[in-house]
Amino acid sequence: MKHQEIKDLIEKIKYQDRKAIANAITLVESKKEEDRKIAELLINQLSSIEKKSIRIAISGPPGAGKSTFIEALGFEILKENRNIAVLAIDPTSSLTGGSILGDKTRMEKLSRNENAFIRPSPSGMNLGGVNRSTRESIVILESAGFDTILIETVGVGQAETEAFEMTDIFLVLLNPGAGDELQGIKRGIIELSDILVVNKSDGDLEATSRSTVLDYKNALKLLKPRINDWKVPVLSCSALELKNIDQCWITLSELRKHLEKTGQLITNREKQKKLWLDKLTKEKLIEQIENDEDFQNELEMIKETLSDKSKSVKTEASNMIENFLNKLRRQK
Amino acid sequence: MKHQEIKDLIEKIKYQDRKAIANAITLVESKKEEDRKIAELLINQLSSIEKKSIRIAISGPPGAGKSTFIEALGFEILKENRNIAVLAIDPTSSLTGGSILGDKTRMEKLSRNENAFIRPSPSGMNLGGVNRSTRESIVILESAGFDTILIETVGVGQAETEAFEMTDIFLVLLNPGAGDELQGIKRGIIELSDILVVNKSDGDLEATSRSTVLDYKNALKLLKPRINDWKVPVLSCSALELKNIDQCWITLSELRKHLEKTGQLITNREKQKKLWLDKLTKEKLIEQIENDEDFQNELEMIKETLSDKSKSVKTEASNMIENFLNKLRRQK
Repeated sequence: MKHQEIKDLIEKIKYQDRKAIANAITLVESKKEEDRKIAELLINQLSSIEKKSIRIAISGPPGAGKSTFIEALGFEILKENRNIAVLAIDPTSSLTGGSILGDKTRMEKLSRNENAFIRPSPSGMNLGGVNRSTRESIVILESAGFDTILIETVGVGQAETEAFEMTDIFLVLLNPGAGDELQGIKRGIIELSDILVVNKSDGDLEATSRSTVLDYKNALKLLKPRINDWKVPVLSCSALELKNIDQCWITLSELRKHLEKTGQLITNREKQKKLWLDKLTKEKLIEQIENDEDFQNELEMIKETLSDKSKSVKTEASNMIENFLNKLRRQK
Repeated sequence: MKHQEIKDLIEKIKYQDRKAIANAITLVESKKEEDRKIAELLINQLSSIEKKSIRIAISGPPGAGKSTFIEALGFEILKENRNIAVLAIDPTSSLTGGSILGDKTRMEKLSRNENAFIRPSPSGMNLGGVNRSTRESIVILESAGFDTILIETVGVGQAETEAFEMTDIFLVLLNPGAGDELQGIKRGIIELSDILVVNKSDGDLEATSRSTVLDYKNALKLLKPRINDWKVPVLSCSALELKNIDQCWITLSELRKHLEKTGQLITNREKQKKLWLDKLTKEKLIEQIENDEDFQNELEMIKETLSDKSKSVKTEASNMIENFLNKLRRQK
């Protein structure tokens, strides 16, 4: 891809050309070295475009109804003439969720709206819908003028931490259910959350839902919210019956205003940029051995000798890196 | 720590001295550079000790009753005169689980048995109970003569993948519950599992449990088991009422024998060693910048300039690594 082509791509992104946006995201998700270089040029140039947006993580365990909730919330947000982009979990990909009883297209209605853009997570990614390219996808979407970015993630482990490190607001969606389920809900998911929403408050589960809200409110009393001067609210809703979704958006908007007014939006994003730099330096360093053919060949050879019990995997790794550094030292 | 001290430590580990085992695990969990070096010597020497063991991952969502199940299974295993070691999730640590309504000591009875050793995951670790030191803890425990290693992990994301890469058998424990819950259960967790167990088959949930077993059996029909000539069984049990726990252990033993007889135990462990080498080389390389004072100082300085919008985080990271490599190239 030539410089002129990148320039054209950027112009198209700015005009919210859907195909250009999709192509750009595919580019940052690519693992090919040539694509990575172009992606870097692209992201560098897009980074300087002035943007005003809010980034919201929608987290929660599998089966909490995240995609139904996001679709309902999406239509609520569209009433305000905002442009929304969703980085969604691919229902067909392994480990990240989706029905095992036949996959249906998620957020189908929302995806047909011209002010909404939905992108499933790259296939083959097994970290719950968020990875290192997600951050760059956000840059692309914001450059295209999307002012509300929703990031769906499974609420446990690495993906959750990553989503936390690239969003302004962390909303956690939960199932109704007291006793055992509340016991099982990890302290961590509550510690991270800025807004807790108990979904499926409909039909037979309405009463359970009410008591679950109270249980979470009590549990939250023991914790310090991560946002200053903000008491983590616990809401209930039914994404299926579109009940109380408006209240969820009102609460999200209140939090956004609070973050802007107190300056926490900016300080938090700066903190996130620092974390990102840490991660990127490590990734860039690892690329050095990943792209080094000699190193990779040696690695494959050593792998074949590991069944020898006298070989220690740790020593082999240390030696390989020592040799790699020595090779660099011999270069001029 | 001197060489003689390491030698003494190894002798004590071989005699299953609990304090020595605990100290050794603390050593491999340490992030201090000096501890890491000793840990490496220790693991290298322990690696050559002949061991025969079975490593079983007990995975599942929070609230499935993993620790109750492990305690019950543990006593079942002890009937066979085996020595069991459990790498358990620390109930007090963030993100990894544990009751938010007051933490109680887990597996209390089992931990008092002289043929069982229970080690909670290191605090501050947020990956669901498994991390890079877990593999080395296994080496220590096996060197101490524990022949059955149970590794508890939360069933989503990175921790699950890591647990999968260091065990022979992957058992997934699930709650009873059809419909929504089954919809929400990820294809991934089922794809990984060698044995599925529906827990809490007691009281009011017994009927639900029976239908859940059928649902999973049907869902599994669509998938290819990862172990050759092994049909993934779906069992139900009640860890609380100690119902059918014996059957769970019988099934685990059958699978162990199958893996041994077909040679898959060995080939799988060799595959895991290769993956481990990949990971270790990356870790070793990253240690180069983590332990480089100049690099870390520069990193901190650059972090302070990131609020300048014209700065691209990606470019800064590339430049830093380029400079680091050039510095190495200037060394002799």
